[in-house]
Amino acid sequence: MPEMPSADLSALIGLLDLVGIAVFALTGALLAAQLRQTFVTMAFFALVTGVGGGSVRDLLIGAPVFWVRDPWVAPVCLAVALVSWFTPRRWWDKPVLEWADAAGLGAYAVLGTAKALAFGVPPVPAVLMGVITGCVGGIIRDVLAGRPSILMRPELYVTAAALSSVLCAGGAVLGLDKGLVWPVAAVAGFGLRGAAIWWRLGLPVYSAEREG
Amino acid sequence: MPEMPSADLSALIGLLDLVGIAVFALTGALLAAQLRQTFVTMAFFALVTGVGGGSVRDLLIGAPVFWVRDPWVAPVCLAVALVSWFTPRRWWDKPVLEWADAAGLGAYAVLGTAKALAFGVPPVPAVLMGVITGCVGGIIRDVLAGRPSILMRPELYVTAAALSSVLCAGGAVLGLDKGLVWPVAAVAGFGLRGAAIWWRLGLPVYSAEREG
Amino acid sequence: MPEMPSADLSALIGLLDLVGIAVFALTGALLAAQLRQTFVTMAFFALVTGVGGGSVRDLLIGAPVFWVRDPWVAPVCLAVALVSWFTPRRWWDKPVLEWADAAGLGAYAVLGTAKALAFGVPPVPAVLMGVITGCVGGIIRDVLAGRPSILMRPELYVTAAALSSVLCAGGAVLGLDKGLVWPVAAVAGFGLRGAAIWWRLGLPVYSAEREG
Repeated sequence: MPEMPSADLSALIGLLDLVGIAVFALTGALLAAQLRQTFVTMAFFALVTGVGGGSVRDLLIGAPVFWVRDPWVAPVCLAVALVSWFTPRRWWDKPVLEWADAAGLGAYAVLGTAKALAFGVPPVPAVLMGVITGCVGGIIRDVLAGRPSILMRPELYVTAAALSSVLCAGGAVLGLDKGLVWPVAAVAGFGLRGAAIWWRLGLPVYSAEREG
Repeated sequence: MPEMPSADLSALIGLLDLVGIAVFALTGALLAAQLRQTFVTMAFFALVTGVGGGSVRDLLIGAPVFWVRDPWVAPVCLAVALVSWFTPRRWWDKPVLEWADAAGLGAYAVLGTAKALAFGVPPVPAVLMGVITGCVGGIIRDVLAGRPSILMRPELYVTAAALSSVLCAGGAVLGLDKGLVWPVAAVAGFGLRGAAIWWRLGLPVYSAEREG
Repeated sequence: MPEMPSADLSALIGLLDLVGIAVFALTGALLAAQLRQTFVTMAFFALVTGVGGGSVRDLLIGAPVFWVRDPWVAPVCLAVALVSWFTPRRWWDKPVLEWADAAGLGAYAVLGTAKALAFGVPPVPAVLMGVITGCVGGIIRDVLAGRPSILMRPELYVTAAALSSVLCAGGAVLGLDKGLVWPVAAVAGFGLRGAAIWWRLGLPVYSAEREG
């Protein structure tokens, strides 16, 4: 399992990373716009939301933080902030953004799990790395904005990331083909998150009866 | 001082780690239950509270993050969340939990200080690593839950961790036997925290007169 | 660019670090005093505010965290907390502190950018490292205190750090002399922050018209 990522795998990881980064950065920038913040704050939010989850993952698994030595990731986040600043907000109305975020969530969770496995992390912590990659950027964004984070809402968000991560790690444990497992895992998480958006699904919360 | 940890020391560190992790994870899971959260949030809280302090310590001292390569720590946190979810909350009434947390606090502070010293960190920063190991998981838990953290309450909590850490580092500076110093240091922090729980002790706060 | 820092550069970095650390630690300690906290909380705030930004920078660029192996930085923060505790708050009235913080901000932003460049980080991420070094300690301080962070206020704070960082990185890209660029960059950030304090300048916020 502690194989190093191959060149192809690295290229795919890099591509998925950019997809997730741009979408997540956009959610951060738009939250800043909604909160009537300045451009500098908007850029900071775009960056933190875009790279926060992957940064925590890389620090935890002991990998070089992916965007720090990369000349393109940070400029992409700043460009997303620029675009958000100069375009009307109705271009980015909530449904479009929520669905894009759902796609980013699935892709990012798979990417995070795969990177952790490639660095020799055992399956259960690797699943957690996938969840962290998908969710922590948004959690930091919400904590900085002083609003209840996605973590504290019953909607299926963290759960969708967990589904993608478990499928990805499960496929690796069973030795299945990555070219099959990864898209299936990403689509499954996207589908669960999409179902939650569409039918307003939520998890059951801890019930009062258990306290009796 | 920059000796590497021996096999025995490592085993003891591992054992103390598991004690602290399970108890802290339980406090995180129970807070999630109290806030009427879902199982996924409960598991996230158990993990963050259980491994947060040790993770920050390991990142700061440049050690591999203890639970990421370990196949057991993350499953233990998830198991704690499962147990919390399926048992009535009165099994975990506040006094029992507070005393278990106090024991974990002392043990974790000693462990954190000892690990930092073993990695060549000087005494004063090593004491801070002990405090961070004991308290930061709970602080992250409270920030995520959006409630005032243990850091902001006058009760003796951070102070008890500091006592254990100072005794542990002091014993190391004086060259005393670890087999003696460590239990004494852990029991001292536990005792101070216990006294604070029992007699509702608190530190004096910054007084208004000084502002005159 | 991936040259290692020379001995002279390291000494200058160390000196600038201590300036920023003490001033930032003081702002943390005084916030704890204002919130009527205990000495232990005050010391924790002094430490987090003093070393938080540099710690995140060092973790992200893969450098050993600057204060952990240093026997002096942590004691300086604790000493600042002691001084804050035992002196009347009017000694540290707001204008003095704001101006000192402005000076620390410029110096710290230059230092952070220069350190990142010296570790081979490309210019755009290096600018972000400068901003992080200058601002993240204060942001963590505000999040822990549960108040809106400097990030969310329209005043020119993060922007001033960004100016110093851009000038520092720009000078490096153009191959200009560090002995000239660094002081100019630090003074420019200090000047912009000072102008913001003096004339109560702020950035424009995201306007409602764009939402139409």
